[in-house]
Amino acid sequence: MQLVIGNKNYSSWSLRPWLGMKVAGIKFDEVAHDLYAPNALAERLQFSPSAKVPVLIDGDIHIWDSLAIAEYLAERYPAAKLWPQDIVARAYARSVCAEMHAGFSALRSTCPMDIRQKHPVVMTPALQADIDRVLAIWHDCRSRFTGHGEFLFGHFSWVDAFFAPVVTRFVTYGITVPAPLDLYMNAVLALPAMQEWMADAQAESSVAA
Amino acid sequence: MQLVIGNKNYSSWSLRPWLGMKVAGIKFDEVAHDLYAPNALAERLQFSPSAKVPVLIDGDIHIWDSLAIAEYLAERYPAAKLWPQDIVARAYARSVCAEMHAGFSALRSTCPMDIRQKHPVVMTPALQADIDRVLAIWHDCRSRFTGHGEFLFGHFSWVDAFFAPVVTRFVTYGITVPAPLDLYMNAVLALPAMQEWMADAQAESSVAA
Repeated sequence: MQLVIGNKNYSSWSLRPWLGMKVAGIKFDEVAHDLYAPNALAERLQFSPSAKVPVLIDGDIHIWDSLAIAEYLAERYPAAKLWPQDIVARAYARSVCAEMHAGFSALRSTCPMDIRQKHPVVMTPALQADIDRVLAIWHDCRSRFTGHGEFLFGHFSWVDAFFAPVVTRFVTYGITVPAPLDLYMNAVLALPAMQEWMADAQAESSVAA
Repeated sequence: MQLVIGNKNYSSWSLRPWLGMKVAGIKFDEVAHDLYAPNALAERLQFSPSAKVPVLIDGDIHIWDSLAIAEYLAERYPAAKLWPQDIVARAYARSVCAEMHAGFSALRSTCPMDIRQKHPVVMTPALQADIDRVLAIWHDCRSRFTGHGEFLFGHFSWVDAFFAPVVTRFVTYGITVPAPLDLYMNAVLALPAMQEWMADAQAESSVAA
């Protein structure tokens, strides 16, 4: 099984399945694709019909979207419990991952992932609304599903993987969060797999065009 | 089980789970929410934490995203076969639904769903690229998965529900598609549930703000 990913400093979509697979102990070969290389688009079209990364390749199967990859792996590796086991929790988890997948456009465009750097934040009402919604989701999960665990649904799940790029953005852009949500951010940042991804991002030399 | 939906003339996201449930014969109470009523946002926040529709309510479970609703219903009603049964086909189906869920921004913004009307299309390179990608997906599905069926994966699946709003947009904006993809559009438009939705859209009086 291969996972094609973009530059670790920038590709928030690539981080999500990579982190989930690493934390769950699912073995895969990592294929690095430089999104800013001269022939990047033509190269990408050879393995991704939408020309997007990440792409999971498992024999004849090509899956070119992070959420579709999440569902595929949850089905194929049920013991990894990448979705919460309880049906109410799982419905909530899928709702917030899907909300992240299609929304938060102000957060995406104003605060793109850039792990190596620190930037000042240019606050707008739309960005503040996106930040407030992230904090409301984290708060709700902690109230309803976290229990005594460190992650939003107690143990690590796809939800934590989907919010991991947001955690790095809050660090990059100096966006502080109220206690105890800072503890949640710290738990994500302290994951060995997350430390590995961030160290690799530091070592990359490509710069976004 | 209740499904809260927006105005049938405009709410492409609402059409998707509504159509899937109707075609699959899953019983539900339809709750109409007028997106353009004076207090719409405040009302919506009472049942949808993201203030978005559609929302599926099943006892304690609130699911406020169309793709999360799709996964929930596929789990809860496996006999409806809303995802293809074959693992390769299912991975492809989820990839294209997720691609639709997070992408096609030119198609969305230039050609919003408006079932009652006909509009001239203002073609741009980005819109043409989105249209070309839709046609490529339909062509690929027909080559690989359709078999002798009428729908993209033979029998009706979530993929057809996710592309149904695109079919209505192609009609509204006079975007013609090459044979035999026109037959696929006709199959979607001829579904009794689709006919019912479009008739209800004609009967609505609210106009998008």
